[in-house]
Amino acid sequence: MEKKSWANADCPIARAVDLLGEWGSLLIVREAFGGTTRFDAFQKRLGISRNLLTTRLNKLVDGGVLKRRPIATDAKRQEYVLTEMGEDLLTLVVAMRQWGDRWLFTPDTVPADLIDGRDGALVSPLEVRSATGRPLTLADIRLKRRRRSEDG
Amino acid sequence: MEKKSWANADCPIARAVDLLGEWGSLLIVREAFGGTTRFDAFQKRLGISRNLLTTRLNKLVDGGVLKRRPIATDAKRQEYVLTEMGEDLLTLVVAMRQWGDRWLFTPDTVPADLIDGRDGALVSPLEVRSATGRPLTLADIRLKRRRRSEDG
Repeated sequence: MEKKSWANADCPIARAVDLLGEWGSLLIVREAFGGTTRFDAFQKRLGISRNLLTTRLNKLVDGGVLKRRPIATDAKRQEYVLTEMGEDLLTLVVAMRQWGDRWLFTPDTVPADLIDGRDGALVSPLEVRSATGRPLTLADIRLKRRRRSEDG
Repeated sequence: MEKKSWANADCPIARAVDLLGEWGSLLIVREAFGGTTRFDAFQKRLGISRNLLTTRLNKLVDGGVLKRRPIATDAKRQEYVLTEMGEDLLTLVVAMRQWGDRWLFTPDTVPADLIDGRDGALVSPLEVRSATGRPLTLADIRLKRRRRSEDG
């Protein structure tokens, strides 16, 4: 299978796919959001080979999503934690979870709810909104190129 | 490389990754949001082989994200359009674009802006919010399992 890198593509989605779109990468990010930090824990929870996990973790570290830090109780070994860039994937991870809940489960098989820890209420479905807060649909949105032409 | 299917995993993110996480799939979805419908147009814009594109399109159709419909001017041929399930990926695609703009470009190289077609104002950054509209951070959110234990 030929493979093309989109790392320098002139599109943020293409670049994000290049960094995150390989098989397993987003599940590593999901695990990191859930508090997993150790190599062995990632491996056990995802059930993927050590070689593949190493490759994926290295790419996420090189790309700035994860960082290595010494394990407090064992300074020779390292664990993996989200960087600020990685934590900013929260919106993407929540969007994926909410879409999956709606379309890949039936209402009575949804396995878990995202809740606000302070009051236990459900997190709202993400909505695309205008600058003034009005909900926007696909028909409302346009992509305006900054360079070349005015209209993308 | 071993490959494990997460199609039946007990996690909406894993199922979404199984459906969308293969190399190129999300870029096909991005193109579909941009109005691309024809096989040849997808192929030209993404620069991937016809075989790979066929495989990816079939999976997206089988998974319910795209549907085939006859081309009005050439009833023998078909084009690909987003289903309701596919259009509901708008939030995910916007989340990916906004994250990519923030972290994979510098402010002066962001290639395009998402705007509200009605007034030209920028689309707001997506925010995870509580049921009452309060912005939530990662520290505020918990995942509450519906079955097994009360706390995931």
